[in-house]
Amino acid sequence: MNWINEAIQKPCRASLEKAQARQSVLTKPAGSLGYLEGIATRLASLQACQKPSLDKAHITIFAADHGIANEGVSAFPQAVTKAMVANFASGGAAISVLAKVHNASLEIINVGVVDCSTDGVLHQPVANGTASFVQQAAMTPEQLTQALSVGKQAIERISQADVFIGGEMGIANTTSASALACAILGSPAEQLVGAGTGLNQQGINKKQQLIEKALELHKAHLNSPLSILQHLGGFEITALVAAYIRCGQLGIPVIIDGFISTVAALIAVRIHPSLNDWFFYGHQSEEFGHQHVLSALNARPILNLAMRLGEGSGAATALPILRAACELHNNMATFEEAGISA
Amino acid sequence: MNWINEAIQKPCRASLEKAQARQSVLTKPAGSLGYLEGIATRLASLQACQKPSLDKAHITIFAADHGIANEGVSAFPQAVTKAMVANFASGGAAISVLAKVHNASLEIINVGVVDCSTDGVLHQPVANGTASFVQQAAMTPEQLTQALSVGKQAIERISQADVFIGGEMGIANTTSASALACAILGSPAEQLVGAGTGLNQQGINKKQQLIEKALELHKAHLNSPLSILQHLGGFEITALVAAYIRCGQLGIPVIIDGFISTVAALIAVRIHPSLNDWFFYGHQSEEFGHQHVLSALNARPILNLAMRLGEGSGAATALPILRAACELHNNMATFEEAGISA
Repeated sequence: MNWINEAIQKPCRASLEKAQARQSVLTKPAGSLGYLEGIATRLASLQACQKPSLDKAHITIFAADHGIANEGVSAFPQAVTKAMVANFASGGAAISVLAKVHNASLEIINVGVVDCSTDGVLHQPVANGTASFVQQAAMTPEQLTQALSVGKQAIERISQADVFIGGEMGIANTTSASALACAILGSPAEQLVGAGTGLNQQGINKKQQLIEKALELHKAHLNSPLSILQHLGGFEITALVAAYIRCGQLGIPVIIDGFISTVAALIAVRIHPSLNDWFFYGHQSEEFGHQHVLSALNARPILNLAMRLGEGSGAATALPILRAACELHNNMATFEEAGISA
Repeated sequence: MNWINEAIQKPCRASLEKAQARQSVLTKPAGSLGYLEGIATRLASLQACQKPSLDKAHITIFAADHGIANEGVSAFPQAVTKAMVANFASGGAAISVLAKVHNASLEIINVGVVDCSTDGVLHQPVANGTASFVQQAAMTPEQLTQALSVGKQAIERISQADVFIGGEMGIANTTSASALACAILGSPAEQLVGAGTGLNQQGINKKQQLIEKALELHKAHLNSPLSILQHLGGFEITALVAAYIRCGQLGIPVIIDGFISTVAALIAVRIHPSLNDWFFYGHQSEEFGHQHVLSALNARPILNLAMRLGEGSGAATALPILRAACELHNNMATFEEAGISA
């Protein structure tokens, strides 16, 4: 676990300043490419280069089951986690299609899906799902360490990637993510609980009550990001937290996806505040609690398309926007090259 | 001019319904791809097919000069129009980079740039810029007809394209577009005048006063979309209006760009209300008046990246989002194919 405390890399200030100077002489009114300019200059700073590139994008989906699913907090049964893992592997899921379209490598990791042995998936299960956190801690300290290790290793395998997108799958994981955000932010459940895959108001109320019960049950232990993760988290969310931290340690920019991924980002940032330098927020999700978590991170998402699917799909949809920002930065003519006196 | 009254094609309702039925059985919670679902089903309806595609995107930039530029309403001198046309042709402008990255064909048309004979550009100038509309009508009725014809022909040359993006270049053309929007919407200049390429408050005030003066001067003639265009428009804006209308007549979906393009779209929709069926709004521009014009069209733009460059750049940046919507629609597995009982 000592690896978690290793330092986060610092963005290169000289590269940032050079990139900003270049933006100011490209053939356009100053600032007229809006957020695309800041995306390009930040990427130049993170990649410590003059011509940032996102050609080698990698997507990892972490999948796991949740004991809390048995309390009826999702519109779908638990078996759908395993079925969707098979769908990721066979290319039929949204994220599989987006990975192919955007020429990104895709790895699917089973961090604890109930009875899952699908081909085309890396099986590193911590357990057959977490325990139900309304009855006990979601995982043991040893399980927490193991799930973190899965996320860390996933990034070490792709250390040549120039951008990372993490996705998640796990029936009931908006319940876990909402509970985590409540504990981290000290916010009431009603600010963070939404419909997930499609609950009605009765289902949302039940989810809220279960989270309040869990926050009460574990209150003596909700005193650090990792302890909160152990008591209320999921294996896939834990692996995401570790993956994000390892990206900052190895110097790989990250595009954060929706609600669950942003909660993982929040936990990672609470462990290493400077990690936020490495994050781009791909999209504003339609899931109710997302805006609240984004605000806590001072995050301004790139897209707002009312998506709420997870799997990394919102972040993957934003990828061509970041790539276009790089291409414009790298390939537009300067006023001097175009013979225009600005 | 009779061609303008030809009917706008009707989207295919059967294709829309089939596409909506397909969306409901793809492996995702219903509605969880947000606006991407509606983009795909609308495109299926417009292309009257089950698997919509935007592989053959075409971008046309219409460029022209404006007499009003000599009143000092832009941060850049008039000669920049001609210089930027050369920059489009040589590949150094933002839209040139985006066209290449997104594999779209690009045509640059000189509809009336002062003294322009750059290679790599289609020269169909109506005149050496418009007249200054604070002194007289921007163009004669014959010039209006000729500029409309340039836009119509541009679309007829690309009738195999599966999506069209129109862009514009013309120093002072936010002044013309603001005046047009005021006349069409009956709105005061202060609601539609912004900084353009970078005016300060004094410049914005002057621009506003000139527009008010022009609205007063021409008030007896501001009684139809085409007469408004003749008195206050530009050749490039006129060509855009015609191009949009011809797209609806020939059945080519359009991605509208920012403020100036949206004003052209507004005029086209006032001529043919059903034309709005064919439009996707690429982005919310940072130019002050854009939101007001979008609201008048009930438009919900795809992106909001604080861009304000014009050239079709916002629409081109949105293109991969529409393409991803198609790919997801066409290639995701259904619940049945994935063996999941929804």
